[in-house]
Formats: sequence, structure tokens, C-alpha cells
Amino acid sequence: MRPSRPAVHPVEAPPPAPPTPAQAEGQEQADGEGVTHPRGVRMKDTPGAPGTPAGLGLRLAQTFFAAAALAVMAATNDFPSVSAFSYLVAAAILQCLWSLSLAIVDIYALLVKRSLRNARAVCIFTIGDGITGTLTLGAACASAGITVLIGNDLNICAENHCASFETATAMAFISWFALAPSCILNFWSMASR
Amino acid sequence: MRPSRPAVHPVEAPPPAPPTPAQAEGQEQADGEGVTHPRGVRMKDTPGAPGTPAGLGLRLAQTFFAAAALAVMAATNDFPSVSAFSYLVAAAILQCLWSLSLAIVDIYALLVKRSLRNARAVCIFTIGDGITGTLTLGAACASAGITVLIGNDLNICAENHCASFETATAMAFISWFALAPSCILNFWSMASR
Repeated sequence: MRPSRPAVHPVEAPPPAPPTPAQAEGQEQADGEGVTHPRGVRMKDTPGAPGTPAGLGLRLAQTFFAAAALAVMAATNDFPSVSAFSYLVAAAILQCLWSLSLAIVDIYALLVKRSLRNARAVCIFTIGDGITGTLTLGAACASAGITVLIGNDLNICAENHCASFETATAMAFISWFALAPSCILNFWSMASR
Repeated sequence: MRPSRPAVHPVEAPPPAPPTPAQAEGQEQADGEGVTHPRGVRMKDTPGAPGTPAGLGLRLAQTFFAAAALAVMAATNDFPSVSAFSYLVAAAILQCLWSLSLAIVDIYALLVKRSLRNARAVCIFTIGDGITGTLTLGAACASAGITVLIGNDLNICAENHCASFETATAMAFISWFALAPSCILNFWSMASR
């Protein structure tokens, strides 16, 4: 993301003259890797898309809940004895790093008041969201399966940290629920250009 | 899907006069609930979309593997003792019914040589694919977590039907892998109109 060839594109017109709607339309048609688009086809920045405050909020929520799942699960001393719990820790680390990176990108885009509309950036965001989302959902479901087995099917919660396992699983699910809108919006934005 | 107001739209022009490319373009602009689209924006029928032979193949693969997961898991007599395995059976039933229904719709569309391009139909397909896909992936991951716990972490395969559990889990994963392209193509088709 060098200043000489930025991945972000200006939303607002230069300050000297406020743009008329026709100028803003023309500016919008011209961006996006030099490909022109007909009127009304490009999606406007919806709340939750990258580079918007709602998008940043979603990323921060993903980061927070993934970090919470990681912290709660790692605090139990016997999580490495179950493969699914180790997998949850790995998936939470990946989710945390990915969401934190995109939160930083969003903060940058908001600080310089630009919109993340670059086709390649949106494509990378979508693929990354899809992969981390699938891994996080898988880890959360695997942990939920084990937790329900321990707590409800076998009733051996007395010997295990059931509360911690359940909390970590719930945090992972919430992180996935925060990731799903980001992924869907990015994919929609990628497909509708 | 009444004949008086069909959910499918003709792909081929009427037989008397073969259409010129301009006519075909005009015909394509006019369909889709009366909304006109500019040139080059509508996606052509890609292989794997609903109403294509590849799409039918994907649906049949989903149905077959979901039915296989269901059959293998239900054949073990102790699956109700583990919640995750019961959940896998329920998810496989849902997946099987959903994919079979859409396979029948695809067969109908292929028999009458029409393309499924109705906006509402694609929207319903996408949402249904998303829900069944998430449930199937969750069930497969939960079962995988239990199977790995039994087989690798606790080493109690001698007392359990590990082979059956592993086979059913693998079938559920394959069914999900066949569902993912359908869901992505439907969502792309919905977003790009």
C-alpha cells in the first residue's frame, strides 16, 4: 500500500469545488483499475463494508471475541489433551491475527478518509474471510461437539473445565457471527462490480 | 412453479428464425422480473449454476454423499448416545432433502430446456444453500471432533464403531464440498444482476 499507487480510492472530491452529482458519478465510473462501469451498477459503501465505521466495528468485535476464546481456552491447563480444543486455539489465533490486520487497514482508511474499493483488495478480503470463517466455524463446532459430549452425554464435568470450554466455544461462535456479515458484504461487493 | 407464470425463462429463441446476437442480447435484457440490465452486466450461465448439467451433477453429488453419511451413521446402533452424531444424522437428512428438491428442479429445467434465472428463485436457492451448508459443515466438524477424540486422544476405538463414524464424517464433508460451489455460484449470480 504505497502512497505512489494506493490501494484506496478517494470518496470525497478535492476541497476547492464541491462536486455536483454528475461529477461524483463520473469519478466513480473512472476508478477501480481503469474499468468503466455503467450507472447504478457499482454498489455504494454500505454500512459494514471495509473502510466504514461499521466495518471497523465488526473487525474489532471479531478480534475481541477470537482473543477471548483463545485466552479462555489457553487458560485451562488440559486443552492440549483434546485435539479439537487445540484446533480451536489455532483457529482463534489465525482469526485474531486476520481480523486485527483488517481492523488496522480500516483504521488507516478511515483516518485518511478514503474508501477501500480496490477490486484486488476486496477479492483478498473475501477469500481471507471465507477461509478464516470456515476454520473458525469448524473449530467452534468441533469444540461444541466435545463440550456437549463431556457435559450432557457423559456427565463428567466434575473432572473437566466445562465452564471454560463452553465459554471459549461461545466466544468462537460469536466471533464467527461477527465475521459472516463482513464476508458476505465483501463477496457481494466483489460480485456486483 | 405454475405454467402460467413460470419461474424459468427461455434460453433459446423460438425456432422459426435463429436470433442474431443483437436479438439475443435484447431478449436477455428484458427478462428477470421486468428489470432491464445494461449490456455485459448479467452473468451468463456458468457451469454449475442452477439449470445446467454441471449444477445438476453437483446437486446429485450432494444428495448422494449426504444420504451415504446418513446411512452409515444410522447403521451404527450407538449413535444416539452422542449428541454430535445425532446432529449429523439430522443435518444429513436436511441436506439430502434440500439437494434432492433442487436436483428435481434442475432436471425439470433441463427437460424443458429453460434456464433458472428468476431473481427470487436464485435468492431462495442461495439462502437455502447457505443455511444447509452451515449446518452440514457444523455437523461434520462436530462429528470429526468426537471421532478424533475417540480414535486418537482416548484410543477407545475397540469399543466403538470408529470406522463407521469416520466414514459418515468424511461423507458429510464431501457433501459440504459439493455444496460450496453451488452456494458461491448462486450468491455470485444473485449479486451480479
